[in-house]
Order: sequence, then C-alpha cells, then structure tokens
Amino acid sequence: MNIETFVDRSLGRWRSQRSSHNLAFQHSEEVLSTVDIVSVAASDPSVAELCKAQGFEPAAAVSPFHMAWQGESDWDDDEKTEGSCLLVPIADPDGAPNQGKLLRSKGYAEEMPAVGEYRFTEEGVFVLITPYDRASAEERIWFGTPNLRFRVSMIRTSDGKGVVTASFSSEIRAKAES
Amino acid sequence: MNIETFVDRSLGRWRSQRSSHNLAFQHSEEVLSTVDIVSVAASDPSVAELCKAQGFEPAAAVSPFHMAWQGESDWDDDEKTEGSCLLVPIADPDGAPNQGKLLRSKGYAEEMPAVGEYRFTEEGVFVLITPYDRASAEERIWFGTPNLRFRVSMIRTSDGKGVVTASFSSEIRAKAES
Repeated sequence: MNIETFVDRSLGRWRSQRSSHNLAFQHSEEVLSTVDIVSVAASDPSVAELCKAQGFEPAAAVSPFHMAWQGESDWDDDEKTEGSCLLVPIADPDGAPNQGKLLRSKGYAEEMPAVGEYRFTEEGVFVLITPYDRASAEERIWFGTPNLRFRVSMIRTSDGKGVVTASFSSEIRAKAES
Repeated sequence: MNIETFVDRSLGRWRSQRSSHNLAFQHSEEVLSTVDIVSVAASDPSVAELCKAQGFEPAAAVSPFHMAWQGESDWDDDEKTEGSCLLVPIADPDGAPNQGKLLRSKGYAEEMPAVGEYRFTEEGVFVLITPYDRASAEERIWFGTPNLRFRVSMIRTSDGKGVVTASFSSEIRAKAES
C-alpha cells in the first residue's frame, strides 16, 4: 500500500459511526457523522502555503486532500460537531514508499495545525502518529472492503505509557448522489 | 510475537468495554463486562478431549487457556451475557512460529465449537479468522500497553464481500485482587 492508493480509495462521502471509549470512567459516546474526502490539486495555493508554514518543500506534497465532517453527538442534541481541514502527505526524503509525514491544517482533536508521521504496515494498515504538546494521537485506518473503512484512534499521554481515550469508527461509503 | 507470549500477556482479569456497530442500521450497542483469562495445563484432560474432537493431536497444543466473561447490555437490563470456553492453540505443522490454529470449545458468537486460523502481523497484532456456516468472523487483538488490550471483530458474509457487524473492545487490566 502507498499513500496515493490509500487516498484514492478514501475519496468520496462516508457515513461514519464512531464509539469513543473514555478508559478511566468506562463510558462511551456515540457519534454519527458524514465525512467527505475530496482530492486537492498539488498545485493548489493552499498546499504550498501549508507546506511552507510547516517548513516543507511544496514539491514533496503527494496526493493532498480535503476532509470535511458533520456530525451529531448522542450526549447533547444541540451539539453539532463539524469541521474541515486540508491534509498534505509529504514523501519520505529517502524515498521509502510506505512512510512519510502528514501535514494537517487544523485538527479534529485540537484546533491547531499538526504534523504527523505515517507508515503502512505489511497488511496495508495506515498508521499515523501525531505528537501534541502533552499527548500523542495514534490512528490506525484500514479497509474491510472497498466500501468500508475502519479507524481506531488512541490518545496517549506524552510519556507513552497511558492511553486516555480510544475510539472506533466504522465508515461506510455513501451511495453516489447526483 | 508468538502465541506463548501473547497468551501469557493476556492472562488475568480484564474490564472490557465493547461497542458493537450494526453497519446496515448504524446503531450501536454498548456492553461492559469482566473477562477472566486463565492458563490451562496442556496435560488437562479437557485439552486432549477438544483436540481429538476436532481431529488434532493433543501433543500439538500450545498454551491452552480458559476464558470466562460476564457482562450487561445497555439494551435490556435483564439481559446478562455470560459464558466461558476453552481455547487451545495448535502449533503450525510446518513449525511457523507466528501462525497456527485455534480450537474453541464453544463460541461467544455462536454456541458451537469452532476452529479458527490465527497469525501475528509483523507489528504483533493477533489476527484470527474463524469460518462458520454462512459467515466468518475476523478478530484483531493487540496491546496498547501491557495493561490495555484492544479487540476489533467483524462478521463477514461467507462470500467475503459484506461485513455485517463490527465491534470494538477496550480491555483494561483489573487491579490484582487478593
């Protein structure tokens, strides 16, 4: 698996069902949302802008994409979670096809830009580790079928020892709409 | 990773938090349960009995264990789910350390014995595929920390194309009890 293929398979509209586990209190929160993943031209000015802001050469950008989501939580009918961000994979400087960096214009976990490191396992699982100030996020994304994506996310404390929350998303490709 | 180490790390009492996703209807069910995993001597008569019933040599059994669980569903206060089974890993006949079969005396998904095939990925994820009459179950189990296990399960239709349900469990090691 490489990032071009992975992004290509991820494009489209997905209906996402997410369960978040608060591990200390053993309670769960369910969120249904719609996720739209759209390809962005490498020549788009926003790509070069994000690369430069994070200190990367725009020429190293591979398969940039835009992600937007809109959801509702079951804990508060008035709480609608929506957002969007630009994601720019950066090729490995040594040319390794199965790893690189991922720039994000702003996060869904935190409202700030982030730079993560991704790699693909031999089974094609996309693993992304994003360090934050006091924690790091670890995401694993894989396809059950071409129309079904799974995503497991964990937030670890910065010493790497504790996992605070874990979440699981099932993402089903929405029917093509006219 | 090999099966001896994996079973060894899994021994003990775990507090499990499971979210099951019905993919067609996008509804979730939450179950909290306690899982006890206990080592069983390879010489225990129940091990030889299960091996013979499934057509395997008892001498091929590696690190057998017993699993018991007790839980409650949020859908029906009266519904208590509990059960237990004997699990017997069988060494690969060609001696591969990272794969083999797993015999189960009866299932938690179905009340019948089962024979699954397991393997470990390069990252140490335990992957178990168990065929049933009209479906197959695929489980992926890995450790987030020594005291935190994750488990993702999917039920696929027998043609392998459709995934009917998917579930995610966070399992936290319970404090040692006297």
